[in-house]
Amino acid sequence: MNNPGLGEFELIARLTGNLATRGDVALGVGDDCAILDIGGDNWLLATCDSQVEGVHFTLQTSSPEEIGRKALAINLSDIAAMGGEPRYALVSLILPKRLPVAVLDGIYAGLRQEAERYATALVGGNVAGAGRSEQLVIDITLLGTVARGHALTRSGAHVGDIVFVTGSPGDSAAGLFTLLHPDQRYPRDAQEAVRARHRTPRPRVLEGRTLAGLAPGIVTAMIDISDGLSGDLGHICERSNTGARIETGRLPLSPAMRAVAASVGRDPLDFALHGGEDYELLFTAAPGHEREVIEAVQAATGTPVTAIGTILPAGAGMRLVYPDGREEALPVRSWDHLKSP
Amino acid sequence: MNNPGLGEFELIARLTGNLATRGDVALGVGDDCAILDIGGDNWLLATCDSQVEGVHFTLQTSSPEEIGRKALAINLSDIAAMGGEPRYALVSLILPKRLPVAVLDGIYAGLRQEAERYATALVGGNVAGAGRSEQLVIDITLLGTVARGHALTRSGAHVGDIVFVTGSPGDSAAGLFTLLHPDQRYPRDAQEAVRARHRTPRPRVLEGRTLAGLAPGIVTAMIDISDGLSGDLGHICERSNTGARIETGRLPLSPAMRAVAASVGRDPLDFALHGGEDYELLFTAAPGHEREVIEAVQAATGTPVTAIGTILPAGAGMRLVYPDGREEALPVRSWDHLKSP
Repeated sequence: MNNPGLGEFELIARLTGNLATRGDVALGVGDDCAILDIGGDNWLLATCDSQVEGVHFTLQTSSPEEIGRKALAINLSDIAAMGGEPRYALVSLILPKRLPVAVLDGIYAGLRQEAERYATALVGGNVAGAGRSEQLVIDITLLGTVARGHALTRSGAHVGDIVFVTGSPGDSAAGLFTLLHPDQRYPRDAQEAVRARHRTPRPRVLEGRTLAGLAPGIVTAMIDISDGLSGDLGHICERSNTGARIETGRLPLSPAMRAVAASVGRDPLDFALHGGEDYELLFTAAPGHEREVIEAVQAATGTPVTAIGTILPAGAGMRLVYPDGREEALPVRSWDHLKSP
Repeated sequence: MNNPGLGEFELIARLTGNLATRGDVALGVGDDCAILDIGGDNWLLATCDSQVEGVHFTLQTSSPEEIGRKALAINLSDIAAMGGEPRYALVSLILPKRLPVAVLDGIYAGLRQEAERYATALVGGNVAGAGRSEQLVIDITLLGTVARGHALTRSGAHVGDIVFVTGSPGDSAAGLFTLLHPDQRYPRDAQEAVRARHRTPRPRVLEGRTLAGLAPGIVTAMIDISDGLSGDLGHICERSNTGARIETGRLPLSPAMRAVAASVGRDPLDFALHGGEDYELLFTAAPGHEREVIEAVQAATGTPVTAIGTILPAGAGMRLVYPDGREEALPVRSWDHLKSP
């Protein structure tokens, strides 16, 4: 854009500052999904996200099936972040002339696999020519439902709440690093593990539904990690009007990610704190419920959940605490899809 | 695409032939909207459509506001075609780097105007960089509702039903013709009138809701004219397993469109029968209800409705009848957004 300072978040804020609305919009732009009340026992959840060739994916580093799976997975993750059940997807494709039909079939095969895995129906399709452009665009709107009043948003965290994360953040960023630096040498198994996490992230749908199904007031806020842990924790703090403290010693770093980081002399905390596209869930829960939260998700899904910090008053900002007691500010180095290479 | 014979409709059929579905999908891919049952008294309607710079619009021939209005209008028209009430829009933008922010503000101003006019809330926003591409893409998903069991689809026409159209088909195509042939001279007022119909079509939302609100069994099938009257009548005939006969003498051709056609020696029937992007409603109703249908829409909206033909058995195909009694086959010369220039 001609205004070089305008990133994704500033632009959305600028464009959506004064939108038309309706009384039955329970939550509009600004969270992982909109929450819509069309009557009945369920609220409707709606989200959209696009993947642009050369910006979000390339056919050189991912197969067509992987691209299709991920395009749906990132939307499934937004439904997961509200504690919802995904239901219906609408897929809009912008197709360059040179695209082989076999690539398109592969992308659709990936979409189908992911849709079936998460019991989601593909109910809408639109294709348009890309004109002179050579770039494929996959734009998906995903609709889901959540029991009326039970959606988890970014705005419910309270001072003293515990901060949790599912799985092992940073794997996807390490995988992307190996793809962007193919000249370096990495431990083979570790490389394959983190690349798989980058190419085909697993949206935490059942994990999110399990958390939303706990007694009201236990889980207080939730978001999925698409922009990086620091950036997405920042979204929770901003929306909840709080600060937060993360204990680096408690971050659940995977052995594969550590091995990749070590092989190139990078700090694994950088991947874990600032790497985008993990699609893990980052959430807060009232103190005293740590064991209940961790065991509920473990029992329902087998996915590990780790307590990594605490919600602070807004004035404290976002802090990092190292195992030796040293503290510093946690900078937000968010993954911005407009500014990233 | 590398397979030059694959147009929009063939491609959608190929890609959606074996889709994941769910029991609560009342109607999937293949009509103007999907119909989804999430419980409660209303069915949910969902549709998506995209506009690509250089394919569907150019900033040389439309203002940013007009582009924004039309991008929403074409989706509103799909909700109208089911007899639904539009409610929520999600807007996904793919932005080239060179795009001035003022253009973007203009597009959003147009989206807002159109949303307010039709009481639609903008509940989702996503922006992505276009990478190397210089083309702006506006992709919109629109959600609406219709009372359970009251949606009008393409598949309900019966032999003997009367075929109706709202407004005056062909105006938009005549407007596009004047834009694509700026070297020709046209009557000034007529030129402005048909260009306005091309740039800012009025989706027939209240007209569609009025028709869906008549006693069950009166209106039997409905579609909006986006591909051209012949192509969209073909969609009704295919889905309803019927043929149809259109009487050319009854087609409601506007004076402005006739004047533009006459000034360049074109047959106005070509614009009316095969021109795309009218966004009028084409529908069928049981015989004996002509006056009721026409008067109901006129009273609620002021929009003229005209009976233009009859549904025939499938074996008869689609026919044209001229005022002198001469008959011929009505060819489908559908507006295909992938094959059009």
